[in-house]
Amino acid sequence: MSVIRQDPTTKEWVIMATERAKRPHEFKKPGVPRSLETYEKACPFCAGNETLTPPEVLRMDGPQPAGWAVRVVPNRFSALRMDGEPRRREIGPLFREMEGVGYHEVIVEGPGHNRLIPMMTDAEVEGILLAYQRRYLALRDDSRVRYIIIFKNHGEGAGTSLEHPHSQLLATPIAPMQIRRKYDVAIGHYDDTGRCLYCDVVDEEQRAKIRIVTETERFVVFHPFASRLPFETWIAPKHHQPSFGQLTREDMEELARVLRECLRALYQALGDPDFNYIVHTAPVEGETHPYYLWHIQILPRLAMIAGFELGSGISINTMLPEESAAFMRDFSAGIARGNAT
Amino acid sequence: MSVIRQDPTTKEWVIMATERAKRPHEFKKPGVPRSLETYEKACPFCAGNETLTPPEVLRMDGPQPAGWAVRVVPNRFSALRMDGEPRRREIGPLFREMEGVGYHEVIVEGPGHNRLIPMMTDAEVEGILLAYQRRYLALRDDSRVRYIIIFKNHGEGAGTSLEHPHSQLLATPIAPMQIRRKYDVAIGHYDDTGRCLYCDVVDEEQRAKIRIVTETERFVVFHPFASRLPFETWIAPKHHQPSFGQLTREDMEELARVLRECLRALYQALGDPDFNYIVHTAPVEGETHPYYLWHIQILPRLAMIAGFELGSGISINTMLPEESAAFMRDFSAGIARGNAT
Repeated sequence: MSVIRQDPTTKEWVIMATERAKRPHEFKKPGVPRSLETYEKACPFCAGNETLTPPEVLRMDGPQPAGWAVRVVPNRFSALRMDGEPRRREIGPLFREMEGVGYHEVIVEGPGHNRLIPMMTDAEVEGILLAYQRRYLALRDDSRVRYIIIFKNHGEGAGTSLEHPHSQLLATPIAPMQIRRKYDVAIGHYDDTGRCLYCDVVDEEQRAKIRIVTETERFVVFHPFASRLPFETWIAPKHHQPSFGQLTREDMEELARVLRECLRALYQALGDPDFNYIVHTAPVEGETHPYYLWHIQILPRLAMIAGFELGSGISINTMLPEESAAFMRDFSAGIARGNAT
Repeated sequence: MSVIRQDPTTKEWVIMATERAKRPHEFKKPGVPRSLETYEKACPFCAGNETLTPPEVLRMDGPQPAGWAVRVVPNRFSALRMDGEPRRREIGPLFREMEGVGYHEVIVEGPGHNRLIPMMTDAEVEGILLAYQRRYLALRDDSRVRYIIIFKNHGEGAGTSLEHPHSQLLATPIAPMQIRRKYDVAIGHYDDTGRCLYCDVVDEEQRAKIRIVTETERFVVFHPFASRLPFETWIAPKHHQPSFGQLTREDMEELARVLRECLRALYQALGDPDFNYIVHTAPVEGETHPYYLWHIQILPRLAMIAGFELGSGISINTMLPEESAAFMRDFSAGIARGNAT
């Protein structure tokens, strides 16, 4: 018998239909590790090909021969452009549009074509996170920007055809309805209880224990109660911190380790799965409000989004988060004992 | 320069980023028509294999040797089951779940393994639509059912691995948040104007003309102003009709022709693209309300849903609906002149 669970942060329901499920180990793709070249002649992100991208907006220095560790450049096929004002135009009585004002940047995560986060050092991952934060802090001061979203598409099933490790940042002149709705729910909770809904969720997951993958001093990694996809993974701070702009250098150092270990475990356990991750953060105007908690949401793309999900917004998840979290705990324990694949 | 458009029915924004676009004809997949067997030994939906499915809940008679034209059967891997009551359980202070009560059915669209809707007669398509409606009318009287969604996944990129033409019905004990939000918007519009928002959208698209693909006596086919995906196509009635349960036999006959022609044109123009379609209809409790208009939404899956869309709910569409609608009009005119591929 399936169960239907409600996501406390969105009030949306998720159908947990485990009878059609694969077991956790059955999700693993064969053929890992894939072999990729360190350098691809045609790759715009490889060291030596820097002229193939628009000029850098940020460069983090790194060892020779590349001389850089992380580069941030405007997206060559930018969905948004940073000129003009986001003034609404009415087209007839019902339709509304505005110029595509905003920022669309690419964070090149390193000079090597095949060096994925799971293979990096903690310091390298920290460099990526610092680049995210610097760009966030630089762009939030543009008064046209209402929301900044940083995300990563890894693999064709997650929407990218570029193999070279990279993430993206979009700064939009509109607040997504999704964050507005999450705020409505979170403000309601705050008005009722005087507490941050997301902090309460993290506390409750820690109390329940069964969906926790790992904990560190500052962070907790878990598969949320109403996960929308198999192996959906959240990395969240243990203490209230609404915005990704607020992480200290010490937070960053620890987060880099947690993110790398998390992605490494998924890489090994599931065989380099296609995935997206999203750095969810408070809207620019809400950085100091007590309603939100930044978090990283990792979404392995092990199943297709089909007509039911698109037509209703309700997800069908074939795996209980308790089961996938236990699998990842066991897997990591296996790594620790030295018998991982 | 891209534009950002607001969907008047959801208030959500869509980024139209046409600089990264393929031109319409570039979306066409090679290798059509694919050759599939009329009969597959292992296919549970093929004529002769009827015992491989659970017993029928509806059978529409058809010519021999199959003896049936459409079969509706419970999904073998049902996401919902029709026993019990959808009582909510609280799990601690924040989490809520209920049994997965509801219906999950498969509509087998014909006995032949390779006979897609574009190749069917109008009468065959009408049989499928009548089966949809009969099941809708049968299930809406179950007091546990709050919403009924009928949809089709065609092709692996749209979430199905079963080739045999089929669609699905889910009857859920919860109203999706998506329809609640659409209702909020539509009720606001009704309170302001005294009119159905969706009827106004259809009227406005007819006035603007540029996004219309075709019109018949009762229906209009268009690519909506804030299309979320390239070639997103709506089939909507010209007169107010909230529920799919309300179509008359004459409506059905005409809709069958419109749907078949629409899918045939997409099949030929895009090379049998993967797609979903969704029969959007008023919630069971709102069938007679003046707020909604049933419609069929066809979503070709020509681009992946990636991190930005998942993380923000905002879509990036690489093609203006004006352009794709003009392409489909020209394409259909070509078919009419007999020079289609």
